[in-house]
Amino acid sequence: MAKPTINVCLIGQKFMGRTHSNAMLKVAKFFDLPLIPVMHTIVGRNKAELDEFRERWGWKNATTDLKGAVNNPEIGLVDVGTPNNVHAEHTIMALEAGKHVSCEKPLAGSLSEARQMRDAARKAKGKTFVWYNYRRVPAVALAYQFARAGKLGRIYHVRAAYLQDWAGPDVPLIWRFQKSVAGSGSHGDLNAHIIDMARFITGDEFTEIVGALAETFIKERPVPESGSKGGIAGGASGSAKMGKSDVDDAMLFLARMKSGAVASFEATRQATGNQNANRIEINGDKGAIRFNFEDMNHLEFYDATLPRKQQGWTNIMVTHGGDHPYVANWWPDAHIIGYEHGFINQLADMMKVLGGKVPEVPLPDFEDAYKTQLVLEAAMQAAEQRRPVKLSELPQ
Amino acid sequence: MAKPTINVCLIGQKFMGRTHSNAMLKVAKFFDLPLIPVMHTIVGRNKAELDEFRERWGWKNATTDLKGAVNNPEIGLVDVGTPNNVHAEHTIMALEAGKHVSCEKPLAGSLSEARQMRDAARKAKGKTFVWYNYRRVPAVALAYQFARAGKLGRIYHVRAAYLQDWAGPDVPLIWRFQKSVAGSGSHGDLNAHIIDMARFITGDEFTEIVGALAETFIKERPVPESGSKGGIAGGASGSAKMGKSDVDDAMLFLARMKSGAVASFEATRQATGNQNANRIEINGDKGAIRFNFEDMNHLEFYDATLPRKQQGWTNIMVTHGGDHPYVANWWPDAHIIGYEHGFINQLADMMKVLGGKVPEVPLPDFEDAYKTQLVLEAAMQAAEQRRPVKLSELPQ
Amino acid sequence: MAKPTINVCLIGQKFMGRTHSNAMLKVAKFFDLPLIPVMHTIVGRNKAELDEFRERWGWKNATTDLKGAVNNPEIGLVDVGTPNNVHAEHTIMALEAGKHVSCEKPLAGSLSEARQMRDAARKAKGKTFVWYNYRRVPAVALAYQFARAGKLGRIYHVRAAYLQDWAGPDVPLIWRFQKSVAGSGSHGDLNAHIIDMARFITGDEFTEIVGALAETFIKERPVPESGSKGGIAGGASGSAKMGKSDVDDAMLFLARMKSGAVASFEATRQATGNQNANRIEINGDKGAIRFNFEDMNHLEFYDATLPRKQQGWTNIMVTHGGDHPYVANWWPDAHIIGYEHGFINQLADMMKVLGGKVPEVPLPDFEDAYKTQLVLEAAMQAAEQRRPVKLSELPQ
Amino acid sequence: MAKPTINVCLIGQKFMGRTHSNAMLKVAKFFDLPLIPVMHTIVGRNKAELDEFRERWGWKNATTDLKGAVNNPEIGLVDVGTPNNVHAEHTIMALEAGKHVSCEKPLAGSLSEARQMRDAARKAKGKTFVWYNYRRVPAVALAYQFARAGKLGRIYHVRAAYLQDWAGPDVPLIWRFQKSVAGSGSHGDLNAHIIDMARFITGDEFTEIVGALAETFIKERPVPESGSKGGIAGGASGSAKMGKSDVDDAMLFLARMKSGAVASFEATRQATGNQNANRIEINGDKGAIRFNFEDMNHLEFYDATLPRKQQGWTNIMVTHGGDHPYVANWWPDAHIIGYEHGFINQLADMMKVLGGKVPEVPLPDFEDAYKTQLVLEAAMQAAEQRRPVKLSELPQ
Repeated sequence: MAKPTINVCLIGQKFMGRTHSNAMLKVAKFFDLPLIPVMHTIVGRNKAELDEFRERWGWKNATTDLKGAVNNPEIGLVDVGTPNNVHAEHTIMALEAGKHVSCEKPLAGSLSEARQMRDAARKAKGKTFVWYNYRRVPAVALAYQFARAGKLGRIYHVRAAYLQDWAGPDVPLIWRFQKSVAGSGSHGDLNAHIIDMARFITGDEFTEIVGALAETFIKERPVPESGSKGGIAGGASGSAKMGKSDVDDAMLFLARMKSGAVASFEATRQATGNQNANRIEINGDKGAIRFNFEDMNHLEFYDATLPRKQQGWTNIMVTHGGDHPYVANWWPDAHIIGYEHGFINQLADMMKVLGGKVPEVPLPDFEDAYKTQLVLEAAMQAAEQRRPVKLSELPQ
Repeated sequence: MAKPTINVCLIGQKFMGRTHSNAMLKVAKFFDLPLIPVMHTIVGRNKAELDEFRERWGWKNATTDLKGAVNNPEIGLVDVGTPNNVHAEHTIMALEAGKHVSCEKPLAGSLSEARQMRDAARKAKGKTFVWYNYRRVPAVALAYQFARAGKLGRIYHVRAAYLQDWAGPDVPLIWRFQKSVAGSGSHGDLNAHIIDMARFITGDEFTEIVGALAETFIKERPVPESGSKGGIAGGASGSAKMGKSDVDDAMLFLARMKSGAVASFEATRQATGNQNANRIEINGDKGAIRFNFEDMNHLEFYDATLPRKQQGWTNIMVTHGGDHPYVANWWPDAHIIGYEHGFINQLADMMKVLGGKVPEVPLPDFEDAYKTQLVLEAAMQAAEQRRPVKLSELPQ
Repeated sequence: MAKPTINVCLIGQKFMGRTHSNAMLKVAKFFDLPLIPVMHTIVGRNKAELDEFRERWGWKNATTDLKGAVNNPEIGLVDVGTPNNVHAEHTIMALEAGKHVSCEKPLAGSLSEARQMRDAARKAKGKTFVWYNYRRVPAVALAYQFARAGKLGRIYHVRAAYLQDWAGPDVPLIWRFQKSVAGSGSHGDLNAHIIDMARFITGDEFTEIVGALAETFIKERPVPESGSKGGIAGGASGSAKMGKSDVDDAMLFLARMKSGAVASFEATRQATGNQNANRIEINGDKGAIRFNFEDMNHLEFYDATLPRKQQGWTNIMVTHGGDHPYVANWWPDAHIIGYEHGFINQLADMMKVLGGKVPEVPLPDFEDAYKTQLVLEAAMQAAEQRRPVKLSELPQ
Repeated sequence: MAKPTINVCLIGQKFMGRTHSNAMLKVAKFFDLPLIPVMHTIVGRNKAELDEFRERWGWKNATTDLKGAVNNPEIGLVDVGTPNNVHAEHTIMALEAGKHVSCEKPLAGSLSEARQMRDAARKAKGKTFVWYNYRRVPAVALAYQFARAGKLGRIYHVRAAYLQDWAGPDVPLIWRFQKSVAGSGSHGDLNAHIIDMARFITGDEFTEIVGALAETFIKERPVPESGSKGGIAGGASGSAKMGKSDVDDAMLFLARMKSGAVASFEATRQATGNQNANRIEINGDKGAIRFNFEDMNHLEFYDATLPRKQQGWTNIMVTHGGDHPYVANWWPDAHIIGYEHGFINQLADMMKVLGGKVPEVPLPDFEDAYKTQLVLEAAMQAAEQRRPVKLSELPQ
């Protein structure tokens, strides 16, 4: 008996296009879903690249006609994997066409665009999703479950950092260093993830950014000679000509949360020695958790309710099917999963929601992602205006 | 322009069938190959299970007619994912049919069957491969490259252990606990992997097993009520009836190698706290390496040629495309890969070899795997006969 | 031939009195010194406790007559181990008596007292020292040497945190929670150490505190029933009566340094799971270091000038005599040393300086420690006034 | 009120003489003891070295007259820190003089000497102690307490290794490489420790050595030019003349224990990258422990009785006074202790026993240490005779 299906139109075939295509290829092999995604149409701007991509990944159609594809009545879900500055255009077009929409993070390149998207989602009949994929790393989902089960108690500290080191002075001036395209630098790219993780795990909301510091360490970069080939740094080589980088290389901020917790955040692309150290530590009066994506199959948990003699950081390998979220769908115990599995897990949960079921842990929609965008904006204002900024000052 | 393809017939649709199918699904999406594998026929014994498997994974055909499938002239590669006791039958049939053959490890359940397979391979025109997948974990391939580049120097010690803990007394008497099917317990299952890894990384061969100890901690297990559903422990539940386990739960041995190195090996399924700790440490006079599959994206390297002040274990995250083996085909730096990627990397290398190219690091064929089988056999004899056993005593 | 000696007068016999006495007992057993400290006089307020302390540790004299002891012509070095609010009184008295002076950190409970001490030191003939003991943990001294040797290159980030978790709501209102005695809470106690370490390792100075956040999570604590018995938490038990804690439990701040580096600092006593996590990470364009006092015999070093294939965090066990600072005086390689050894190493260096020799790495004097005090003060003002504070705004 | 005292005569002023002197210097400062050791007489062969040692450490007397010192009626405890081949002579002399005796490990250089010592101890009125100091590392004592409390359950595996790497080919032919003095190489030096630890923690005894492998990697070494200056490698420099090393560089063996547990042991001085990796892992059906001396302030514990979701290795920092053994006598929580503290803890327990009190965890006497010697001997015979050796074959 054939399962119900939903046709997907994916916009964007770079790094994220590849990640999403892989998820669509695999999800129904590993999950028993109420609804199966079908790789219907891939949309992009470069026809030659697009055809090669279609061929490789098995998309049925490839087109540069964005509007036509999005409005195609056969399409049920529009998946937006484009740069931040066109999220609003693409997602609102799809919502107005009555489609379900999933969008890469952050929600938008600016708060006002994000608000437009959130408002469009409120009026639309389609459901919305945002690819905050780290929520669906099993260790992060387990942290969420522990927090919900009261294992952390009253939370004192959230301490999050997303450290990378790929952006040395030789890396060319790709779109990630241009404010007009990216909106911001490490802030929107990396802090967005850890803000979402902090909100997700704690269930708490930010009230104030107390201080913030943005820095562009490398102010001029070589202008790229050739186009981006995907990957974080785009794979482009630089010419002799130099151009100005106008985004933050690093962005740090201190914050307060509704519960009384204090929080610190840092995003940077110059933290030599850290390739993808997306890490968070949360200390409560009953327990604490620690996570670092570079060791993504583990969650560290400190249970302060155990007899003192036995207390310590427990390094939980989050790979036990039946006990740990998502992993029953994958391999035997301790047969490590990776980066791509977070996306597949998310797609599985999206299919569950669209098929009328409950996701393993909550999915972020535009409403939810707008709250993360408020924090991003408040932090940017705090850095620029050199003063504390309350979230209540911003348009809700 | 379409790439050349090769039709694959896979025998076995349990845990390994799933792993291999996933590799075939993904390999051409991530690697640029001279030859593309086509998922042509899946062979098994249970028609209902098989049809579901075909449907889910996208195999074109499913059949219980083993002979017909293997001899089908459309098939170019026969991939054997069945239990050890039928490896000889299945691979020899395929070799005699003129096919290329890949076989799950260990080569066979007994030395004499392994020798028949090796001999059949010598006479056949098809190429042979054995799924010692851990060779193609990037960190293990890097260890191989370091050793070849002389970074270890004269090797003193090989210290390998493959520790699991899934086989408590409640786990039912599945095929893995039956000598007639599995040949041995943890020894053939786990020691096989670390013997191959030791031979691969060092390029050295064993000369003598000096002492060996086999133990069956849990001598009786509940007879399974239902059939295995894949996974290591088979997912079966046990009945009230007890049956005898006649394989080793744990097998330890001490050995000498041609170069003068001494080696220790341990395989066990009762090492509480270790879910899949496939680990190896090699100490040479110029350097040392350490690997643990539970942290598979890292290789630890100790460079004893650095100034003493700077010496220490360097935890290399083996995820830098262009520098580390295989990873340029995957995700950006430090975007973790997992268990399944070893299989996909191996399939890519097999396609390279069959397409006339050079694999990233050497692939084990039946000739090579027979040498691992000799070590397994010598260790078993040493344990049973309670005496040192030289490899030269065994049929070469 | 007897070595020259110097008579020491130690003021304070609590936790720090014990630490310093141990250093004086051991230093000449392990180091070949130009000058030997003699345990001449211990000064305190409680005569009974003092006599017991003298007896146990082997001080020649014990007295409650502070002035007499400090001015005793036999005394060469006055060592001040009292609470922060009396540092100025005790050290200035000793400097005016022409003595050498060593003082526990932070320099003082307030900036103006610290300045008075610094000014007194400028006019005095005695030398001054401050017990920023972590400089003399071998791993931290090695980090200093690496930075001086150019192994970090241009520094982008300093990321320091000193996390403890002993101050739950049941811990009574000891002096550490009283602003009038301690000056501040975790800030002066813990941030003082990591500010000094950051300045020491980088050789750089702070220019601005960009944002700061102070929080008192536990606003009321039980009034102690009995006196402090030493140790961090004082060992006192609490009564039913509650009193107000008026110091920071946690203090976080963001800063800029002269070189262009950005820095973040955090001190807290409620970071569940961290007992004494004094940690610092410094990322430069040529390399990076990481240190955590909970693993104090190691320094992690990332050498970004190695071939990319070999790059990783090297966990250097800083215990190799002849290569690593201080350890030739202790035990064989990897025979771990502990907390107390930092103090003994410092005392050895103080004796070297007073005996006309060069210390292994630079010692902080009052001049130096005043610069740390400026950072502490600027951060406190930034937190209170909710604005960035430049160090140049403060009295130099 | 003065505490009772006991006069100590220490024989040997090299590495161990220094370690024991430090313990005697410090023990009464940190522990409240029923009996205080007094540093009465140091005995050695080189009068000049001895006088310097006496002066430095504060021994009252120094003499080369061994017999006179041991028989001096003022002496209560004779502490033997000499090489293994004279343990029997020195300890039996002291026992016959009616003294309490403590002896460095292993008990003796040969089984027959060990038996003579054990027999002498049985007849003597003095108490005996052996310096198996690692029992008194707090983490090891905690492992003992956990095992006694049933937290490990039925033990399946003991996996111990003591890995060092100091003995490269340039290290001269000091006494440690001479069988006539040392009895054996790494075996008696290092395996002795881990055999004792295994017996201590499990409370179990060995029944059979199933296989053993001894290897001398470096068969010739430079003859030393100058005398040993203490430390493991003796600090001597080598001449151009070469001499034969006739002890094991490495010794590995496999064993069975009374309870049915299987065990593996390895000692080596050529395990590049491991400076003092004295490590043990014990896997039971209820839990497991892991310890590595290079990280001696931690014990890893795996509690298999917790809900599966929370299971993992808990890294217990064994530094919480009141909960963890010995540490209440030292510094605040997580203020790391080191190698020397194991000796001081042992001396404290010895003083407790001699003062009529109960030690924190059991102390090894000659009776107990003879059982470790039986294991050492059986392993040596198994290696030499290339066959399994039952402990019951040896003189009990």
